[in-house]
Amino acid sequence: MNDVIRETVNRLLDRINALSDPGPGFTRPSYSELESKAHDIVAEEAEALGMTVTRDAGLNMFARLPGIDRTATPLHIGSHLDTVPMGGAYDGQAGVAGAMALVAAFVKSGQKPKTDIVVTVTRAEESVWFPVSFIGSRGLLGRLDPEDLEAKRADTGKSLADHMRELGGDPDKVLDGAGLQPARFVEFHIEQGPVLDDAKEPFGIVSAIRGGLRYRNAVIKGTWAHSGGAPRETRADVVFALSELVMRLDVLWGEMLDEGKDIAVTVGRIDAATPEHAFAKVPGRLEFCIDLRSVDDGALDRMDALLKEEIAKIEAKRGVTFKLGTQSRSTPTPLSTQLGDEVEVAAKALGIAPRRMLSGGGHDAAAFALAGWESLMVFIRNWNGSHNPDEAMDPEDLITAVSVLHKAWSE
Amino acid sequence: MNDVIRETVNRLLDRINALSDPGPGFTRPSYSELESKAHDIVAEEAEALGMTVTRDAGLNMFARLPGIDRTATPLHIGSHLDTVPMGGAYDGQAGVAGAMALVAAFVKSGQKPKTDIVVTVTRAEESVWFPVSFIGSRGLLGRLDPEDLEAKRADTGKSLADHMRELGGDPDKVLDGAGLQPARFVEFHIEQGPVLDDAKEPFGIVSAIRGGLRYRNAVIKGTWAHSGGAPRETRADVVFALSELVMRLDVLWGEMLDEGKDIAVTVGRIDAATPEHAFAKVPGRLEFCIDLRSVDDGALDRMDALLKEEIAKIEAKRGVTFKLGTQSRSTPTPLSTQLGDEVEVAAKALGIAPRRMLSGGGHDAAAFALAGWESLMVFIRNWNGSHNPDEAMDPEDLITAVSVLHKAWSE
Repeated sequence: MNDVIRETVNRLLDRINALSDPGPGFTRPSYSELESKAHDIVAEEAEALGMTVTRDAGLNMFARLPGIDRTATPLHIGSHLDTVPMGGAYDGQAGVAGAMALVAAFVKSGQKPKTDIVVTVTRAEESVWFPVSFIGSRGLLGRLDPEDLEAKRADTGKSLADHMRELGGDPDKVLDGAGLQPARFVEFHIEQGPVLDDAKEPFGIVSAIRGGLRYRNAVIKGTWAHSGGAPRETRADVVFALSELVMRLDVLWGEMLDEGKDIAVTVGRIDAATPEHAFAKVPGRLEFCIDLRSVDDGALDRMDALLKEEIAKIEAKRGVTFKLGTQSRSTPTPLSTQLGDEVEVAAKALGIAPRRMLSGGGHDAAAFALAGWESLMVFIRNWNGSHNPDEAMDPEDLITAVSVLHKAWSE
Repeated sequence: MNDVIRETVNRLLDRINALSDPGPGFTRPSYSELESKAHDIVAEEAEALGMTVTRDAGLNMFARLPGIDRTATPLHIGSHLDTVPMGGAYDGQAGVAGAMALVAAFVKSGQKPKTDIVVTVTRAEESVWFPVSFIGSRGLLGRLDPEDLEAKRADTGKSLADHMRELGGDPDKVLDGAGLQPARFVEFHIEQGPVLDDAKEPFGIVSAIRGGLRYRNAVIKGTWAHSGGAPRETRADVVFALSELVMRLDVLWGEMLDEGKDIAVTVGRIDAATPEHAFAKVPGRLEFCIDLRSVDDGALDRMDALLKEEIAKIEAKRGVTFKLGTQSRSTPTPLSTQLGDEVEVAAKALGIAPRRMLSGGGHDAAAFALAGWESLMVFIRNWNGSHNPDEAMDPEDLITAVSVLHKAWSE
């Protein structure tokens, strides 16, 4: 059985990753032709396994394998196939390949799963393209808002609605849709941190997903000046202002961790390299972003308040002006204890004792959980982090996790 | 007489600034067609005044007006016509317009200056295009090196030699040239800081030019990671590393000023906004530059040593690697006390008492001084700093300074 799982995982990863914008790494933008082609590969393989393939108005893809009890709550299992720019070979892809391998294991052995299994391939999970969280899954759950559809893609400047229509979707119908009936959702996904690798464990059961609080388009305005001519006391230097903010956040972050709060602080992008910037000019403007993550909404609120206090102090001290811009937010989300327990029982039957752990990144599983689904993630060991060209997963770890799900869904 | 000066200043500024790449501000790259056209405008106006126009192998332009004593050391007076990207209307231009206005005042009144006056329009003063200081003036002084000619222009990637040749210059001849005989050089230039404006003084006499120590292509390498998945202790975040360095430099800068040392610290460009950067990624690489300025070579050396100490500490603490890249340097340069005194005497005769002050920026006048010329700068009051689209000079201040030089060169 593991041979079928292994072949399916490796073949699907290879076929999907053959589709990418030029490297390094893998780039398939949300609602791009490349993302559609990746979906088509999965549809083709699902049909070859005798599954029924459908797509919804938002172009999410579903492939159904009938189970022994057709009336039982079905298991949706899958992930997404878009990537961040220059992303890795596994974030999203591994979850889809694992889902297809689970189905293949049932089909090739002639055995039926205990319930229907619906391989579910979502759209647009990576919110770096459109500044909207979980577009595909929120669409299929009837939870997208009209303003979400007006969001512009970072690279093309065209709206989500336009991109959806171009690929054959129907944004109006997405908004009108009531959403799927709550069922069960499981997502295999590489861990985005080093916890499993450090502990030498092949996979872990995720008990909750951190929420995020972001300012994606923050700006600091100061005063452009000549680097040799402007005395120190006359400067309003935006690089010094940002550096002071980052160092204050560093201290506050450490203090909150010391108090036992869960919080992570990232400034992932600084643009002080426009044609106006030069080594001989005191910089008068820069753009940056801030990303806060926590399983605790209160911790996000507290760090946000501290951030604003620090900004007020730095503005007063350095004569600069911060504009944080629009805040976007995702909610910390507990996942299904019941589903986690079922996976743990099957794992133990196979001699494995997976840990319960947190997810630092947001995922479609959070959208399903917030819509009342029993939702679970299974993290696969990964080194070199995620969202980068060097994501590294041993397919054997995913194969182990798939075999555990196979065990759990066998009667 | 001031009417002739005023008309000439305003007309030349208008004609030169009509030549620019698209705004905001004014952009004429070093050794570009635009710079050549700006030189041609000055040549045309000089010939209309009956001056003899010549160009050297490096395409610097000279326009000579005979004086009463043809054997006396001539006065070269001028500036440059290239700009930084999105620069202002006066840095360089004002000095050329002022030089031409000085000549026009003599010609239109039928009066001869006491010595020959050579309006001298240099090339490529702004080293943001080629990473070489004072290309034009060092060329005419016989002080360019073969490797300088191989420097690549930041926007085109083509060498200085190629750009020079394309516009009709002869780089081999520049290298072979012995350089002009030492004479006297005066440059009108907007102040790059707010000192004169704060003091409400129209112009000042520059006693020395700060030198610079620069790392234009510094890099920090860390580890790319997922913003929510990488625990704090596993991160090697280049933005946090740079912020810590900038804040340490801020402290060290203040300490050196408190000790009475002259020093300025600028980080004018940070590029953490490549396609690989995203709000949801811990940044694993960024590029930046550092610019140190001082009238004291020892202060530059000391800050450079402190910079490297801080980098070693941050590397050890944060798991990142700094590569500062090539250091470029310009020498702090005293200007001519004799020429300064002559200008001061003329000013006092007109009821003005100009201050002696420092130049924070490097200028061609430094290259002339280092080559043994009597060299002087006269700073014109300017608000909004320089090297930006908002440079602001009241032409009346320049006219006042030109009338002082006219007084000084009248018999």
